Amino acid sequence: MSDDIPASRAEAAACDASDPLRQKRDAFDLEAGLIYLDGHSLGPASHSSLEAVNVAGHQEWRRGLIRSWNDAGWFALARDTGRRLARLIGVDANEVIVADSVSLNLHKLAAAARALAQSPMLIVEEDEFPTDQYMIEALAELAGADFVRAAPGAGLDTLSRTGGILIKSVVSYRSAAVTDIKAAEQRAREADGVIIWDLSHATGIIDLDLKAAGARFAAGCTYKYLNGGPGAPAFLYVDQDIVQSVSSPLPGWMGHARPFAFEPAYAPAPDIRRFAAGTPPILSLRAMAGALDVFDDVDMAQSELKARRLGDLVLSRTRAMSLKTISPGSGKRRGGHVSVLHEHGYAIVQALIARGIIADFRAPDTIRFGVAPLYLSFTDIWDAMDALEDILSSRSYTAPEFNQRAAVT
Amino acid sequence: MSDDIPASRAEAAACDASDPLRQKRDAFDLEAGLIYLDGHSLGPASHSSLEAVNVAGHQEWRRGLIRSWNDAGWFALARDTGRRLARLIGVDANEVIVADSVSLNLHKLAAAARALAQSPMLIVEEDEFPTDQYMIEALAELAGADFVRAAPGAGLDTLSRTGGILIKSVVSYRSAAVTDIKAAEQRAREADGVIIWDLSHATGIIDLDLKAAGARFAAGCTYKYLNGGPGAPAFLYVDQDIVQSVSSPLPGWMGHARPFAFEPAYAPAPDIRRFAAGTPPILSLRAMAGALDVFDDVDMAQSELKARRLGDLVLSRTRAMSLKTISPGSGKRRGGHVSVLHEHGYAIVQALIARGIIADFRAPDTIRFGVAPLYLSFTDIWDAMDALEDILSSRSYTAPEFNQRAAVT
Repeated sequence: MSDDIPASRAEAAACDASDPLRQKRDAFDLEAGLIYLDGHSLGPASHSSLEAVNVAGHQEWRRGLIRSWNDAGWFALARDTGRRLARLIGVDANEVIVADSVSLNLHKLAAAARALAQSPMLIVEEDEFPTDQYMIEALAELAGADFVRAAPGAGLDTLSRTGGILIKSVVSYRSAAVTDIKAAEQRAREADGVIIWDLSHATGIIDLDLKAAGARFAAGCTYKYLNGGPGAPAFLYVDQDIVQSVSSPLPGWMGHARPFAFEPAYAPAPDIRRFAAGTPPILSLRAMAGALDVFDDVDMAQSELKARRLGDLVLSRTRAMSLKTISPGSGKRRGGHVSVLHEHGYAIVQALIARGIIADFRAPDTIRFGVAPLYLSFTDIWDAMDALEDILSSRSYTAPEFNQRAAVT
Repeated sequence: MSDDIPASRAEAAACDASDPLRQKRDAFDLEAGLIYLDGHSLGPASHSSLEAVNVAGHQEWRRGLIRSWNDAGWFALARDTGRRLARLIGVDANEVIVADSVSLNLHKLAAAARALAQSPMLIVEEDEFPTDQYMIEALAELAGADFVRAAPGAGLDTLSRTGGILIKSVVSYRSAAVTDIKAAEQRAREADGVIIWDLSHATGIIDLDLKAAGARFAAGCTYKYLNGGPGAPAFLYVDQDIVQSVSSPLPGWMGHARPFAFEPAYAPAPDIRRFAAGTPPILSLRAMAGALDVFDDVDMAQSELKARRLGDLVLSRTRAMSLKTISPGSGKRRGGHVSVLHEHGYAIVQALIARGIIADFRAPDTIRFGVAPLYLSFTDIWDAMDALEDILSSRSYTAPEFNQRAAVT
């Protein structure tokens, strides 16, 4: 597969012909003709995911009933699914567990990190994903710790100065810019500070090697590029070398060393399981575990490369339409979406949807094109950009009032 | 339906004939011949629940994709499902939301209640459900508050003395004894203290009237008597008169007044929605919402009465087998299970399971018989007790080693 940006539909088709991931689309249950550019928000259903939830409902629950906690492996499912997910972020199998939501997992990890950081100060940048800000500010208030909302890009400086705890996205939900984890971790260690990585827009799209980069704490989302299903449970990672020296502030029974001994006092599990809380939602968890089947033979370096090349194509075509972008340009590391700006962005997205091309809009003026490499081809992107060009040149979009509820992170 | 305890299988059949809930069993997808006495742990699948998760997966997610957040009502689903659940616990529709797990919801409510209680002291009785103890002790540590593990039954005395915050189950998971909410709330108010009610073993089985009893905070489980599916999301209730004066310590984006404005600062929703956190697991939530269909025409007073009568029958039969109980006797208010004691309880439960009768065991010696009134008949209980009698009198049980993992709360 050449790295050149295709300059015609024929060249796009040639890129598809040599794409090592081209067969992966068959794993998804996508309507023919639909071009789905919203995988950064909600990934599509795979056959294996739909089948898994079907089995969980109709066989495991309906027939197995309570016995399925053992017989169908429900007890171990959060852990087992974490084990499978570990490879995709570059950590050991026993360092990941599936639990709760990203919001809650960030709370757990930030609270836990206080045992290791020089200062309990909690730091989030002011352009960080909003829920991260809400959760961490509330944690600071509950725990009586200082909270700093740093300027964009200035979080690490604050950590360096204070030895505090920084919560930071690896891939920006706005621009898809990728943070250098290794460089940041080095600075954090020099200051005896800690970074909690939010992998929400990174997992299942870019080639993560958290272990080699020295990351110690991370949480992430499974319903975007992992295609785990709407609101699928999130995951978290803690370096096994430190997991026994930190504890969860939300120690539900599933995190107990002996959950069925029903002991009144809490004894945390000796590993990542201590970050589990209540009973996990098995049907949603099964759907997510089924979605991971699709990744079993995916080389994440290929995923990142193809996402970047698809994104390069979006940038090349939209630049020709005189659209500005806030995303990293060609040649730079980038996540799975490209953000371009237009004052009538909302109306344009609606016009695209009317043509069977689903992208999303972020107020006030950002169109996000998701370029998930497992179910999108170069010709898909080419055709979507043709449609966009036609909509722009013909001004065939009306400008309905923006409906905030029409956008999901 | 007579209130007498049937003394023969014919009398049990007569009770069934006049049972106003007898048709409800058709709503469930239970194997013919199976007698399921474990609804206090995991309720069985209903047709409506299985259908709901099927629609959510195959239509809403697969076909609707991101559009289903609006078009299929996913955004409002946690709230809408809470609205339907409200009647079952005797509160207003706008006072309940579905979110997270019981463990996490207890944490939220206990932290929130500090704004109203005379003292931030957190109180749990030492025989309270273990996860409640773990969560509340950890919250106290995080928030720097005092934690008291009170003697069984002494929690309210501690609250009276201190004006603190007591976390208490309405129905005991051990004995199924029912606490008098109204009397307890009166004492709590006199002391300017607050009670957080754990409704896990109460919701969907007994006739709750939280509003009339003066309850201000409660959380509960949906996968037991509500039959919402394994690990189905939990719910919480806050009195609408005080909801705006309390805040969640876990304020994820779903609890924001304007979740899609992506504001860096948190502004809580003006109602119960402020206690939502992250994105809910839609497939599990849909299954649970579907399970509520079964309750739409159920009179909870009838549910409680039938559960008590089925339990009376268990007690009458097991007394005749010289088995002791820790559950409230005939004539007393009782939840949906009966606990009887036997030193070989684990082996006996295994022998029952081998005969298609599923009960559960709690170490060291407690057999719990769930008597959920929507899918169990008097003859079911009669037959199960016949089997138990046969197993006991023939000593046809071996004593395999107790497997802790075989029991789920």
